[in-house]
Amino acid sequence: MIPQKGFVRRILVEPPSLNNNTADAQRLEECLLNELGTDYIRIPLPVLKKLPSNLRLWEFKAKAVLFKDRHSWILVDLLNPLSNCPVLGTAVDIGTTRIVVSLIDLETGFEIGQKGFDNPQAAIGPDVLARIHYSNQSFGQKFSQNMDQNSGLEELNSLVIDSVNFNISVLCKEHGFQKEDVYLFTGAGNTAMTHLFLGIEPIEIIKEPYIPCVNIPDTQPSKNLALEINENGVAFLFPNIGSYFGGDLIAGILFSDLDQKQAPCIMVDVGTNAEIVVGNSDWLIACAGAAGPALEGGVSKMGMTAKPGVIDQVWVDADTGDLMIHTIDGKKPLGICGSGMIDLAASLFLTKRIDIRGKFSIQTCGENLFKKDGINYFMLVDENHSGTGEPICLTQVDLNSLTSSKAAMYTILEVIVKNTAGLEFEDLEKFYVAGTFGSFINPVSAISIGMLPDLPLKSFEVLGNSSLGGAKQLLKNPDAFERIMKIRQSITYIELNVNQEFMNMFSGAKFYPHTDSSRFPSLQNKI
Amino acid sequence: MIPQKGFVRRILVEPPSLNNNTADAQRLEECLLNELGTDYIRIPLPVLKKLPSNLRLWEFKAKAVLFKDRHSWILVDLLNPLSNCPVLGTAVDIGTTRIVVSLIDLETGFEIGQKGFDNPQAAIGPDVLARIHYSNQSFGQKFSQNMDQNSGLEELNSLVIDSVNFNISVLCKEHGFQKEDVYLFTGAGNTAMTHLFLGIEPIEIIKEPYIPCVNIPDTQPSKNLALEINENGVAFLFPNIGSYFGGDLIAGILFSDLDQKQAPCIMVDVGTNAEIVVGNSDWLIACAGAAGPALEGGVSKMGMTAKPGVIDQVWVDADTGDLMIHTIDGKKPLGICGSGMIDLAASLFLTKRIDIRGKFSIQTCGENLFKKDGINYFMLVDENHSGTGEPICLTQVDLNSLTSSKAAMYTILEVIVKNTAGLEFEDLEKFYVAGTFGSFINPVSAISIGMLPDLPLKSFEVLGNSSLGGAKQLLKNPDAFERIMKIRQSITYIELNVNQEFMNMFSGAKFYPHTDSSRFPSLQNKI
Repeated sequence: MIPQKGFVRRILVEPPSLNNNTADAQRLEECLLNELGTDYIRIPLPVLKKLPSNLRLWEFKAKAVLFKDRHSWILVDLLNPLSNCPVLGTAVDIGTTRIVVSLIDLETGFEIGQKGFDNPQAAIGPDVLARIHYSNQSFGQKFSQNMDQNSGLEELNSLVIDSVNFNISVLCKEHGFQKEDVYLFTGAGNTAMTHLFLGIEPIEIIKEPYIPCVNIPDTQPSKNLALEINENGVAFLFPNIGSYFGGDLIAGILFSDLDQKQAPCIMVDVGTNAEIVVGNSDWLIACAGAAGPALEGGVSKMGMTAKPGVIDQVWVDADTGDLMIHTIDGKKPLGICGSGMIDLAASLFLTKRIDIRGKFSIQTCGENLFKKDGINYFMLVDENHSGTGEPICLTQVDLNSLTSSKAAMYTILEVIVKNTAGLEFEDLEKFYVAGTFGSFINPVSAISIGMLPDLPLKSFEVLGNSSLGGAKQLLKNPDAFERIMKIRQSITYIELNVNQEFMNMFSGAKFYPHTDSSRFPSLQNKI
Repeated sequence: MIPQKGFVRRILVEPPSLNNNTADAQRLEECLLNELGTDYIRIPLPVLKKLPSNLRLWEFKAKAVLFKDRHSWILVDLLNPLSNCPVLGTAVDIGTTRIVVSLIDLETGFEIGQKGFDNPQAAIGPDVLARIHYSNQSFGQKFSQNMDQNSGLEELNSLVIDSVNFNISVLCKEHGFQKEDVYLFTGAGNTAMTHLFLGIEPIEIIKEPYIPCVNIPDTQPSKNLALEINENGVAFLFPNIGSYFGGDLIAGILFSDLDQKQAPCIMVDVGTNAEIVVGNSDWLIACAGAAGPALEGGVSKMGMTAKPGVIDQVWVDADTGDLMIHTIDGKKPLGICGSGMIDLAASLFLTKRIDIRGKFSIQTCGENLFKKDGINYFMLVDENHSGTGEPICLTQVDLNSLTSSKAAMYTILEVIVKNTAGLEFEDLEKFYVAGTFGSFINPVSAISIGMLPDLPLKSFEVLGNSSLGGAKQLLKNPDAFERIMKIRQSITYIELNVNQEFMNMFSGAKFYPHTDSSRFPSLQNKI
């Protein structure tokens, strides 16, 4: 017999006899415990209700849909072994800005489809801070149409749950399934989003000493969360290790396999905050966001959200030295997104249009540089080529903000890798870049401006949506559950201490690429 | 600090600090694990939702309502430590004929009140057999008014649940409480009633090889059973060890403390069937009902159900030798109940009105004996004194039935105590008589007819409603939970083998008091 690995298993329950008149439920339990090699499984009442007739109808065979929680396995449902009823799961990246739902066939592990949509909570507040404040109000009613009277928390909760329900349902329909075919739900989000998804008060997350209500949410009946999947379905939200290190990052570590590496590796998630984990199978050190004033503005806030017409790539024409641009979908340019901004800064620096302090140079910028209200503007696209009718410019203010952000990123990397883990950047075998924003960053550009350390290009690996990736992985592999708990348990989370030493390092990193240019040997022959 | 013992505990959660920024839920969990000396407790989502604000409002103190299941403790609810909100539990004897609900103050253990009512399922069938058959029909609709279309099982389930809900609500109101004050529900019933209460198919209980769907029902959210108590409440149904040995008996063993005795003791539950457990803290042997043809008619079916006007006691006037009667509430006699019947048979035998074969004697009965359709009638009450206008008689047919029943009871006792446990009746330190019917039996009468063995009167102890008693005990003492599981685990259940040896013993026991009268020395000077 082929060993079964996933959350759907074919089982054969010992039939009753005069020699074994143990109850059906207890024989089922024994069969499952043997199959799973465990000593505790929960069997839900709805499965019991029709167990005697089902077992006899199915000749004591069944297809068991399983899941786990912290202390036990859970029998989610028991299905006719002969029917071809689909057994699906949904993995969800519960992002602050964008939510992505993936539909997985639990028997094969194949992804059936994916659907991304904007988090409707954005109508209440663009970031978690605004939403948490709103959640603390007694009466919401501002954005939700379906509720008579409710708290801000209930409203935020309904918004996200309703949108997830709607999109699961649409995704199922598009692929010829029903939402009742979905038995498992795994979701990964930051700590605040996880609280809002569960309907748990998040207010203490933003009040000193900044503690979440829950670190490890138990697996819930999906009904408890008003998730409209199979009525026996269950839902699991990834655990967090604090207000600033959420389940999305635990999912990312799982997805990157960082916790199973021999040589130390690093994962950097450049999302709303910068979150970093370094380590291997023996140890994991993490730090995240909130690096004081250095990160104000945020690494990811450097530009527009990616959409058609947005400049996402900038490069220097080798012959003319002109700045070349690429826009999403080839539309007329409307603005520039984060990854484009990093490319742009790199191009400006490599062509000496900005100096090592990150200031525009009149000599090299030429007529593209002009002054308005005392501020330098660098025109990337003139009004004739722009999709807005206005020229697209980078101001010295924008550039200063980018400089701070890139310096903050480098400093944080330096603090965690060198000062905390006691390693050199060169010791890192892999440099995983996670997060949607991170996916678009060109490492060559990021190295050129001194945002990322000067490692061989082959060490950089883009993970894409690692939060979703981790959530999907859990649906496919029950062993991931224990890995998640172990990752959570073994991470040493360090608070970034923005002290004088940090500020000194930060000052050095504000140069292009760095005040100590020997750290960036690959740039030697470029500048 | 006084150690706390019950299911309601006052706790102090460690407040968060910069040194301990573990989530509220995990600090609560740690506090509870310490308090309970355990390593696993489940905390429900509704408690989490408002945990941060509640903990801070209550200065990190709380009143925890707890319960257990097979593998863990359960936090049922977390209450304001300063409010005097009542915390109640209901213990329920889910009898086939009659249901009794008891309301308990979980903080003091005091019983607030009790309410008994007829099991409304009787409208569908008087016994479990009829009900189980009915449960197997696809459409019920005969007796339930509230359901559009449903199965027989759903109908039977609704009948019992609705009646329990109604009576809990009335009981609460009568004592100035609300049903929302009730957090815990413990119920004990026979295996069939437990299945019907849970809404689980019971049909296999009556089909060879006679196996229940479930031996050990998990603790359920009360909502799952449609029990209308506090919305966070939980419900536990006592486990069974088979179709013929139900949770009511496990509850009875708990209540009798049989499982904690040093010397062997016996418990006999004379309900719809006769169920017997013998043992001590080291071993327990049980057998129950279904002793083939010997028990047809049933021990408890010997007379009317006890109600006003029913003869419940009969004795011999020492001077005149006349039979004296007592009726319930002193009303004019309407009939005779089981305990009255045993008294009557004893009185008839001790006055030689029946012989050792259990036949009426014309010489001693005199004019009270008459013949109709070839059957002997013994008139106990003439038509002038009867409440029905008809004389109240005992026929030879009735008496034969009683003789069979008492012989069956004695034989079963003999089989289990002597043949199975290898003891003599004299080795039994205590003889517990459980069940409502058993409560009214006069042991002297039962010994006189050879129904019970001739033990010193002080060894007999009436337990009353031991099923309810066990359910109540569990509400008061969390340790009872493990005792219940251990009792269930350690019982050796023996099938009564109605073979030639049994029939030989049975034949001997059909005499009054027994074919071997030396077994009843206390009768020597009475007959």
